[in-house]
Amino acid sequence: MSADSGLGALREEIDAIDGELLALLARRRGAVERVAAHKKAHGLPVYHPSREEDLITDRRARALAAGLPPDCVEDVFRRLLRESRVQQGRETARHAVRPGARVLLVGGDGAMGRCLRRWFEDAGYEARVLDRGDWPRARTLAAGCDAAIVSVPIDRTESVVAQVSGVLPPECVLADITSVKAGPVRAMLAAHAGPVLGLHPMFGPTTHTLDKQIVVAVEGRAPERCSWLLEQLAAWGAVVMPATAEEHDEAMAVVQALRHFATFAFGQFLERRRVDLRRTLDFSSPIYRLELAMVGRLFAQDPDLYAEIIFATAERRALLAEYAASLHANLPMVEAGDREAFHREFMRIAEWFGPFGDQAIRESTYLIDKLVERF
Amino acid sequence: MSADSGLGALREEIDAIDGELLALLARRRGAVERVAAHKKAHGLPVYHPSREEDLITDRRARALAAGLPPDCVEDVFRRLLRESRVQQGRETARHAVRPGARVLLVGGDGAMGRCLRRWFEDAGYEARVLDRGDWPRARTLAAGCDAAIVSVPIDRTESVVAQVSGVLPPECVLADITSVKAGPVRAMLAAHAGPVLGLHPMFGPTTHTLDKQIVVAVEGRAPERCSWLLEQLAAWGAVVMPATAEEHDEAMAVVQALRHFATFAFGQFLERRRVDLRRTLDFSSPIYRLELAMVGRLFAQDPDLYAEIIFATAERRALLAEYAASLHANLPMVEAGDREAFHREFMRIAEWFGPFGDQAIRESTYLIDKLVERF
Repeated sequence: MSADSGLGALREEIDAIDGELLALLARRRGAVERVAAHKKAHGLPVYHPSREEDLITDRRARALAAGLPPDCVEDVFRRLLRESRVQQGRETARHAVRPGARVLLVGGDGAMGRCLRRWFEDAGYEARVLDRGDWPRARTLAAGCDAAIVSVPIDRTESVVAQVSGVLPPECVLADITSVKAGPVRAMLAAHAGPVLGLHPMFGPTTHTLDKQIVVAVEGRAPERCSWLLEQLAAWGAVVMPATAEEHDEAMAVVQALRHFATFAFGQFLERRRVDLRRTLDFSSPIYRLELAMVGRLFAQDPDLYAEIIFATAERRALLAEYAASLHANLPMVEAGDREAFHREFMRIAEWFGPFGDQAIRESTYLIDKLVERF
Repeated sequence: MSADSGLGALREEIDAIDGELLALLARRRGAVERVAAHKKAHGLPVYHPSREEDLITDRRARALAAGLPPDCVEDVFRRLLRESRVQQGRETARHAVRPGARVLLVGGDGAMGRCLRRWFEDAGYEARVLDRGDWPRARTLAAGCDAAIVSVPIDRTESVVAQVSGVLPPECVLADITSVKAGPVRAMLAAHAGPVLGLHPMFGPTTHTLDKQIVVAVEGRAPERCSWLLEQLAAWGAVVMPATAEEHDEAMAVVQALRHFATFAFGQFLERRRVDLRRTLDFSSPIYRLELAMVGRLFAQDPDLYAEIIFATAERRALLAEYAASLHANLPMVEAGDREAFHREFMRIAEWFGPFGDQAIRESTYLIDKLVERF
């Protein structure tokens, strides 16, 4: 048998097996569809972490027994589980915790406002939009509303809160989705006597599924009358993370402002030096490719969104100045090529990172494998 | 039917389908094993990019026809293809381009040296180690060698090259795997009259497969007599990327020194501020989680490896100083909260990034999905 014809026959065999695999995947999808219908009918949540982990543990054990590599089998089933959540989510997205309730979207013509509107309307809520031009009709729009969600840029949040609270029914939940929480929650509590809830969805308007997306929730007033809104987010697949406004803002200064500023400054330097990106990618390790993708991603998005995040508060701006000073303070060590000083500093930081290092290696190795797999 | 028993029956159905899936995956693995044996017997390469792309295109089309989401099906088959390359690679790793050739590993007791030794020995080469204590026997070890690969820290590469070249047979290929190339290649050409090859493997000693890993190759002298070494790397699954020493070093200053220094400085600042990592992760977007994993990964590794990369040359150290100054120059804008200036700067950089932005969004979105899927 020649090299080519032998390989050809084997490839035909693999193609046939893959055909059977696809047929099974289609059968599996049918079964998942019936699970989704069942969950919808009984008001059960889409994401069931312990069922998923049990399933993965079982499939890994069966893989081992069948002589298959368990990591590969786990990856395949994780991918199928994600698809199954998305598929079920599409069904349950139409499930309203409070069907027919009226939700006023203040700033509803913005990107996040439009995104919320779609979610609420698809679930059978009555979504009303109050944007810049609608203030003359504000009282009519607000009449009978069960919730008002303020979705405007940070620097206008507090003034819009003051303005809208004048027309809200006293029982209406007043919420905002701004990426800082202390100021807006304080402003909502001062302006509105009814239930108050601060939200920060950790995703952008282009997100096509709320599957496992985090929404930080800051209690304002009368949490028992705000809970249906949080239950609705959970029904859409989101993970609601309670926090105080202060701890949220402190964490966000790092998670958003500092991290985005560092990424901005790195991209800025690449541009100043006119670095040949393509050529660096030719030579790159998967890590660099991944990091460069993060930089490129920032500059492919809306500058004003980033300006808003980076410059939100005086505390954030002070933190960034501190960061620049801290980075700059390494220059004597760098210029002297002082490896001993670097070693000492590195070890001190490594010790502080502690067990997080293991998690970081595990997660980043997984992603690097995924990157190598795909590109 | 109650909510629980209905769901139970559906889950049993899914479990049964998954059992059939696993059986098919095992059959597929058997077929891939026969492909591997066939490729080994006929000396064919493991990685066949066009066959893989054809397969993906076909499976996507069949998925669409079967009402399955093509992206999910593509992910599943990419994962199976990776496993299949690893599986085949394990077979072909034992395939030697020049069986029985003698390879002298200078610095062979270091981490990369031990890694190379394992690869060469598994493929049926005679690997000899020449480390610090072995210099008295250097002439004996070098006798009859077909290649000598210098694998020592950057700052010792040139002196070790000078030392070892005195004992090498004139026809022996002299190569190095240092992460800078201009100095070492110049040193090898000056010290050795025979074939010379500069290599830079873009992976670390813990890499368990060379599958799609990049190795930069800088021509020194007599490339036709070095080619078997490059063919061997390709046979192991690596992608050999030719470059001049100068373009390699210029790109690496960014890919390695600058990027690692930026990551170091970010982790350093987190430590100085005693940022609560766990809490930031609770609130984090997948992007932050990914970026923090990259920082944690660095500090979980060897400080001296990073010191070596960051401080390698005076040009690199100057580049880092320039970067710190560039980042620092943003402070007036940050302190003034000057969003207009930020907007202008952002747009200028975004324009320079140009079409890379699309690629960055595509790659990072894929990885974010993978991260959400897994953790």
